[in-house]
Amino acid sequence: MSIFLRITLASIDHTLQKIFSKVHAGKDMAASADREASGKVVENAHEERFSGKYVEKIKRLPEKIWGMMWKVGKEDPRRFIHALKVGSSLTLVSLLYLVEPLFKGIGQNAIWAVMTVVVVLEFTAGATLCKGLNRGLGTLLAGSLAFLIEYVTTNSGQVLRAVFIGGAVFLIGATATYIRFFPYIKKNFDYGVVIFLLTFNLITVSSYRVQNVLKIAHERLSTIAIGCAICLFMALLIFPNWSGEDLHNSTVSKLEGLARSIEACVNEYFSEVKPAEEGNEPTEDRIYKGYKAILDSKTSDETLALHASWEPRRKRHCYISPWKQYIKLGAVLRHFGYTVVALHGCLRTEIQTPLAVRALFKDPCIRLAKEVQKVLMELADSVRHRRQCSPEILSDHLHEALQDLNIAIKSQPRLFLGSNDNQTSNMLALAAAQASQKNHKVSLPSVKTDSSALLEWRTKRASEQSRENERKCLRPQLSKIAITSLEFSEALPFAAFAALLVETVARLDLVIEEVEELGQVACFKEFRPDDQISITCERLPVDVYHNHLPSHGAE
Amino acid sequence: MSIFLRITLASIDHTLQKIFSKVHAGKDMAASADREASGKVVENAHEERFSGKYVEKIKRLPEKIWGMMWKVGKEDPRRFIHALKVGSSLTLVSLLYLVEPLFKGIGQNAIWAVMTVVVVLEFTAGATLCKGLNRGLGTLLAGSLAFLIEYVTTNSGQVLRAVFIGGAVFLIGATATYIRFFPYIKKNFDYGVVIFLLTFNLITVSSYRVQNVLKIAHERLSTIAIGCAICLFMALLIFPNWSGEDLHNSTVSKLEGLARSIEACVNEYFSEVKPAEEGNEPTEDRIYKGYKAILDSKTSDETLALHASWEPRRKRHCYISPWKQYIKLGAVLRHFGYTVVALHGCLRTEIQTPLAVRALFKDPCIRLAKEVQKVLMELADSVRHRRQCSPEILSDHLHEALQDLNIAIKSQPRLFLGSNDNQTSNMLALAAAQASQKNHKVSLPSVKTDSSALLEWRTKRASEQSRENERKCLRPQLSKIAITSLEFSEALPFAAFAALLVETVARLDLVIEEVEELGQVACFKEFRPDDQISITCERLPVDVYHNHLPSHGAE
Repeated sequence: MSIFLRITLASIDHTLQKIFSKVHAGKDMAASADREASGKVVENAHEERFSGKYVEKIKRLPEKIWGMMWKVGKEDPRRFIHALKVGSSLTLVSLLYLVEPLFKGIGQNAIWAVMTVVVVLEFTAGATLCKGLNRGLGTLLAGSLAFLIEYVTTNSGQVLRAVFIGGAVFLIGATATYIRFFPYIKKNFDYGVVIFLLTFNLITVSSYRVQNVLKIAHERLSTIAIGCAICLFMALLIFPNWSGEDLHNSTVSKLEGLARSIEACVNEYFSEVKPAEEGNEPTEDRIYKGYKAILDSKTSDETLALHASWEPRRKRHCYISPWKQYIKLGAVLRHFGYTVVALHGCLRTEIQTPLAVRALFKDPCIRLAKEVQKVLMELADSVRHRRQCSPEILSDHLHEALQDLNIAIKSQPRLFLGSNDNQTSNMLALAAAQASQKNHKVSLPSVKTDSSALLEWRTKRASEQSRENERKCLRPQLSKIAITSLEFSEALPFAAFAALLVETVARLDLVIEEVEELGQVACFKEFRPDDQISITCERLPVDVYHNHLPSHGAE
Repeated sequence: MSIFLRITLASIDHTLQKIFSKVHAGKDMAASADREASGKVVENAHEERFSGKYVEKIKRLPEKIWGMMWKVGKEDPRRFIHALKVGSSLTLVSLLYLVEPLFKGIGQNAIWAVMTVVVVLEFTAGATLCKGLNRGLGTLLAGSLAFLIEYVTTNSGQVLRAVFIGGAVFLIGATATYIRFFPYIKKNFDYGVVIFLLTFNLITVSSYRVQNVLKIAHERLSTIAIGCAICLFMALLIFPNWSGEDLHNSTVSKLEGLARSIEACVNEYFSEVKPAEEGNEPTEDRIYKGYKAILDSKTSDETLALHASWEPRRKRHCYISPWKQYIKLGAVLRHFGYTVVALHGCLRTEIQTPLAVRALFKDPCIRLAKEVQKVLMELADSVRHRRQCSPEILSDHLHEALQDLNIAIKSQPRLFLGSNDNQTSNMLALAAAQASQKNHKVSLPSVKTDSSALLEWRTKRASEQSRENERKCLRPQLSKIAITSLEFSEALPFAAFAALLVETVARLDLVIEEVEELGQVACFKEFRPDDQISITCERLPVDVYHNHLPSHGAE
């Protein structure tokens, strides 16, 4: 037993440390932010300086909190409305307790209604409906089962009854928990199972001491129903947020983001100003921002679609739920995104095709990218306005742009590993010179797409220069690889770039197919030639994914 | 108001439809599965057949449920243990109610302990600790605040008090909900805020009717503490599952998965048996399975790391928490994965470099892939055994393999858009012939990486052939693109393949860097030349991501 105790003590000790370190870390962060912001240097003695700093910090705290609140609300004003809705619902449900006639009717158990409101009222209508119904069904089932058990044990002795209840609690507890691992249950009814388990235990265990189980079950069910009703009223009728709408908007912004990424990517590839020379982060940012939201969108898309499937449909004549199609479109867009990531990777490889060579293909490549971007924008536009996309969407322009690129590549056969040794070695010399210029950062990551990782990497570089040097000695092979790579022809990277660009066109086909299917499934209005394609580049202000609060709420 | 009512009725109507359709869908699924499995054909009259089928179905139901339970448990036996743990904890906590002396000490409020166990006991120790402490802190804070409000209002009149309580509920409710949108709070303390809100409402609202608020607050806190203690005991000491361990194992399996993917990908690219001809899905599956888990791993990685950061550390001399490093490694592996997806894409493009051409580069490419695979396997091995990786990890073999590929490409200059028109047109003819062979599936997706999407696509194809045909008439441009693409040189796709393969080597550098950093941060044991690299390809049986149950549990 002593080892158990020791482990427990160690873990408590650790946890306390952890909490302190978290608090401390928070302070540190605040302090460092302060330091940058204030810029004032207090040059007194140590202690005075510290106290001065703390006073300063405390003075600035409300301002900072206010700034944060403003920022969160500005990102999406619906958050503010949602907070007000929760406050009002809670006040409304508290009236059950505060107003004398209502309290007389319902009594102490009104507290269940309050709890229901806290845990069921979610950001979107679909999520609230899903939770409310799960909660209702779970309670109903558990109440019935508990009543059955009460009925069975009603005539047995006190001890036997306790044993029976204990056994039932164990069995139902283990089974319900196990069932939560079933994929179908986990996806659709996880919350219901938890509520079932909770209510079952509540009623069964209470029934041992309280005689009237039916009353408990009935009261719990009715107060939960009141709570759910308030939640549904608030979620569906007062400034409702629809998951389906969010999913729709996020699909539009994904299409636009990809379009922007491709354009920025191709422009930067042929830009004559090297990003490293000028430090123009913005292009890099623009490419990354375009596809960032898409790569990890699977979970949030599926959650939104699940909740959307619970929402009432607005179009009566449309019988098939379009949400699955949105998920399919999302999967295709994710794969499109992977190609864009690879394209972005071409901008950052160690060996680069010389600018002079790239310039030969600049115009057809940029034109092709523009066409791809145009198609994506038109798709985004058609989804946004819920109309089917034009059958002319794959215009002749795209066709011509592909042809142009084809001709351009064919017209420069020697570049692709031409047998002209002289030229090749010249290019190698050039590349080698370029490489030697930047050999102080030998292990520069070839793709820096994760901006946070990049930031971390930079700070790491700055602070750990000494450790870095020592490590470098251990791995002389790294630079060896870099050199080996340089011996490849410089045309190879450009070939990869061109092939990936062509690949995006091939993938565009899939995207168009899915968008067309979406148009049919979701009953978008027919395309009429006169509502002409007006390509707007308006940026959606909302990142819907950040609104999805973690779902707690068993009771 | 009538429009409100109408919307409400419509939504209720819809929801009922939805439930029925879900139940129905479940039945349909079960039925179709049955149909396949049983294979018996009952050829009586309609009604008899139906009744026979239902009897059959009901007979087979227990068997099917048993099969499902077996499968879920076999995937990860820890699920079974977890279910037993939950059952035992619930029985244990029920004793507070069932055993007379304990009940006398604690009373009716023991029910809070039961509820705490249901919602706090999670699959891993870290998640349980995180939730338990959030719950404890939230309750403590809310209790204090509620007591303060009680103290302020204690001398005012009944009506004024009701108004004050209502106002406080509104204000705290709205503020707490708004705070949940702050990224830092959302990540670390979301559950704590919900519990705070819940407890605050519970105590404040109750205080209007019950006189002794301090007693309520104290009882709630103590029963929650008992519940949390039982949960922590179960989670930390009885067959504990560690989030950190899961994260570690998932990192190992990711490295291995990538290794397998690359190998399978390159082998298939140079395989002489066309997958379409033989229908050997397995290779396709093997490539996809390798990187599937990696692409969408961001959310689950972050959750695991968050929970792991709450777990007590096993190594006392290791002060930095390694979990952030696992996330960074995960991000790098994800980007490595995107390159593999692009590589996989090369296998599925419409234009393919002819096999005869590919064969020229078969050996160096396969060798290079083998070397990359070897390095990844060695990295996986070193992470698995928690030792730092060998400084010799980038062996000369990899270097040589790169050189070989370089030489092979240089030795075939004419292939890369050589000016020999004869040869080019020959190849085009060949490619055209290939294309015409498969022109009955013009819009074949160029990459079919999402197997579920593939499956759906197939079933869709089968069932909607007619609609498909009609749609095809609308888009004659699709095939136009395919043709245009064919006019490119066939060497271009191979160049892309080779460039991407070289890119994986460049990315390998980043992976090695992160693994080395992980070795230092997590205090892995030093590499000794005598614990020699034994590359085992053992497959981890567990997909840890499926164990992460959704977190409900405010109360």
